[in-house]
Amino acid sequence: MSAIRNQSVDPFFSALTEILGDAGVVRDPSIASNHAGDWSEATRSTPCIVVFPRTPQQVAATLEICARFRHQVVVQGGLTGLAGGATPRDGEIALSLSRLNAIEDIDNVGGTATVQAGVVLEELQRRVEEKDWYFPLDLGARGSCQVGGNAAVNAGGNRVIRFGTMRDMVLGLEVALPDGRLLSMMNRVTKNTTGVDLKHLFIGSEGTLGVITRLVVKLSPKPTYACTALCALPSFDAATRLIREGRARLPSLSAFEVMWEDFMVAAQEIHALRPPFAASAPVYVLIETLGTDEANERALLENFLADVLESGLVADAVVAQSMDDAQRLWAYRETVAELLSHLKPHAAFDVGVPMAAMDRFVSSTRDALAQQFPNQRHLFFGHIGDGNLHVLSGPHETSDDLHRVEDLVYRAVGKAGGSISAEHGIGVIKRDFLHQSRSADEIALMREVKNLLDPAGVLNAGRIL
Amino acid sequence: MSAIRNQSVDPFFSALTEILGDAGVVRDPSIASNHAGDWSEATRSTPCIVVFPRTPQQVAATLEICARFRHQVVVQGGLTGLAGGATPRDGEIALSLSRLNAIEDIDNVGGTATVQAGVVLEELQRRVEEKDWYFPLDLGARGSCQVGGNAAVNAGGNRVIRFGTMRDMVLGLEVALPDGRLLSMMNRVTKNTTGVDLKHLFIGSEGTLGVITRLVVKLSPKPTYACTALCALPSFDAATRLIREGRARLPSLSAFEVMWEDFMVAAQEIHALRPPFAASAPVYVLIETLGTDEANERALLENFLADVLESGLVADAVVAQSMDDAQRLWAYRETVAELLSHLKPHAAFDVGVPMAAMDRFVSSTRDALAQQFPNQRHLFFGHIGDGNLHVLSGPHETSDDLHRVEDLVYRAVGKAGGSISAEHGIGVIKRDFLHQSRSADEIALMREVKNLLDPAGVLNAGRIL
Repeated sequence: MSAIRNQSVDPFFSALTEILGDAGVVRDPSIASNHAGDWSEATRSTPCIVVFPRTPQQVAATLEICARFRHQVVVQGGLTGLAGGATPRDGEIALSLSRLNAIEDIDNVGGTATVQAGVVLEELQRRVEEKDWYFPLDLGARGSCQVGGNAAVNAGGNRVIRFGTMRDMVLGLEVALPDGRLLSMMNRVTKNTTGVDLKHLFIGSEGTLGVITRLVVKLSPKPTYACTALCALPSFDAATRLIREGRARLPSLSAFEVMWEDFMVAAQEIHALRPPFAASAPVYVLIETLGTDEANERALLENFLADVLESGLVADAVVAQSMDDAQRLWAYRETVAELLSHLKPHAAFDVGVPMAAMDRFVSSTRDALAQQFPNQRHLFFGHIGDGNLHVLSGPHETSDDLHRVEDLVYRAVGKAGGSISAEHGIGVIKRDFLHQSRSADEIALMREVKNLLDPAGVLNAGRIL
Repeated sequence: MSAIRNQSVDPFFSALTEILGDAGVVRDPSIASNHAGDWSEATRSTPCIVVFPRTPQQVAATLEICARFRHQVVVQGGLTGLAGGATPRDGEIALSLSRLNAIEDIDNVGGTATVQAGVVLEELQRRVEEKDWYFPLDLGARGSCQVGGNAAVNAGGNRVIRFGTMRDMVLGLEVALPDGRLLSMMNRVTKNTTGVDLKHLFIGSEGTLGVITRLVVKLSPKPTYACTALCALPSFDAATRLIREGRARLPSLSAFEVMWEDFMVAAQEIHALRPPFAASAPVYVLIETLGTDEANERALLENFLADVLESGLVADAVVAQSMDDAQRLWAYRETVAELLSHLKPHAAFDVGVPMAAMDRFVSSTRDALAQQFPNQRHLFFGHIGDGNLHVLSGPHETSDDLHRVEDLVYRAVGKAGGSISAEHGIGVIKRDFLHQSRSADEIALMREVKNLLDPAGVLNAGRIL
């Protein structure tokens, strides 16, 4: 990896400038630093150069130059990732997609949008909603994260139970490869069985195999009405049965968020929220349906809740009667951002656990954490409708303790046959634990594929593997 | 490729027998022939040997032997494919999954099933329904096709609009590779973002990269009530607006089948069916919703139809009042099997076309076919809710004519940015047209991936590429 010492004579820098123009190659470390976002878990550093391609062809040409000069490059989208994957390592140049940000087409008949990778998620949501369509991916970072990055990490969010993850919304991709090819896979049809569906190599592989430059995404008809309820449950077992009944009886079920009692208590404390029910419960579930027929959605949900209250699956329930009501119910769940900063330095987890193993996983992990770290808080919550559990443990005093917590949780995930990252990705911070979720043969094949597509090893090196 | 001449001394045969036992290696060509199913489009031949592994390890060992001896092998599931992919070519041995057919586990809490590749689709459907779950993949060949094959071709069927294709139902896979590795990717959680999701290399690649041996599939809660309606529409444009409104207002919409007038006329003729409406229409749509609340499903659909009748989107509509009624409405659509045999020798297509291009594609293709082949019938229908169009043209007298029809249709698909195979796969019969749906770079990368996983080129050689 060559360091850039002298702009005027460095052939690598000259090659980049020739492709991208002076304005497309920025050397000022302060720009790079401002550009580097804010996340707490991994080492931060500034890249020596940030490049800003304006066309997919420029992205491909940049990668070809990096491979030719064997100069490592890190891909940057909205810089909202939580796994450290976009943070430059020493000597890496950064390739920012932020100027590749056009919404090229919204197909009003087929319900698809063709967008460049740097489009901000919220911008896409807004633009398609103007045309009465809906892009269902939604997450806290919507105002900064980019759709290319969403695809690179296969983003999830709150509504996976209804609409799937980003992978399920991508019909087509265009990807720049390290050898300079611009691979077009801009499929626009739902069903396409014509050989290996290569786009899936790039979705979820965190930019290690190629740089996503354009996407065709699937849109849904715009829902106009959300119905929200909060339920208190006697046990987690009741929650597993509730989700099954809910999926059967509520076709427009769009969220099923579980909060264990410890989380609920902490959430109420931090925002001085009133307890939702007279009596406390071991498990709470937030249910949302999204539809277009208010009366029908409400009737379906209320009938459903009446039945599960009668059967004892649910101990108590409240249905929002207004938007304000709904916000009050979501408020418990949405204290997460504050809890994260309140419990710093923390270990925060985003794991997937099979539903049948969830109850035991939570109680044994909670007990083990409480025993080893009796003075810390250990909170459990998540998008349990799709097996995605978040654990928040802190504040921890030393990085050694943080590592012990990570080791404890990831081992337990491995033992339960779960995933060490449900939706945030591996990046650099979970590399050491990859073997807990992927078999040795899988890791070997991932290396073979990496070597096939990036033989010089210049692209997002040291991420995932 | 070595021919097997003498059983007692042939080292290839001995190696197979050592792994599989005498009962697992069958040389009788008549068995092979009975085993070879029945489909009309491609050349049929019998394999010299059929092997019947009983464990995933035996599948992997068989592939390793084939690679070592450079002996080509074709994978066989239920032999219901329509693209000729499982038909042995001269000298190939056939590897049948039919004895690898255990349902290993149905996870009643998480709603997943762990199955071996040779399980027949209908058997899986039946077994999970006994436990009040539902495996939503469904197609005409359900009684013979195997779930491993369903994954290998990414099968679709009637309910893709609600439940997606097979790819969307597969959580985990185990795959035997030509180098003898048994690659375990038996993930059981919905959200898993831990590097490249390698299972997608094997789903839809028609057994050219590895042999699927086991699967974890996602189940849905069992619907208990279907609501069916047939609509007459004034135009295809009305159908595109109807599907959009239907997706917004009918969350349990599970089928949206379009039949053009020419198909409807032929369907009525062949079975002496009564016309569904007093007046004929250019386009008919069959709608189905699947749910658990009969009164609610019916009310939603009836309200929806009342509104679209009033707005003129639909000219006439009939809602089934009983199971018999529903069968009568599906009967028009289900004449396909008879039409296929009636119009032999025919060219039958399974293409994907972007919705915005569909109307023009259908009318220009119909005109071109009518002009070149005025004495044949050309029928258009399909799962249009997901852009999947079927075209049936025949009877044609010469294979030259059949090829001209194929050339005409696939060129038009390429021009429309569509897919030459929505759900049947490429196999051997669509190889020559692959370039109409995949870019040159995609085909090159597919070859590179094939070469990475099967460097000796022994597995399903000559399929897809």
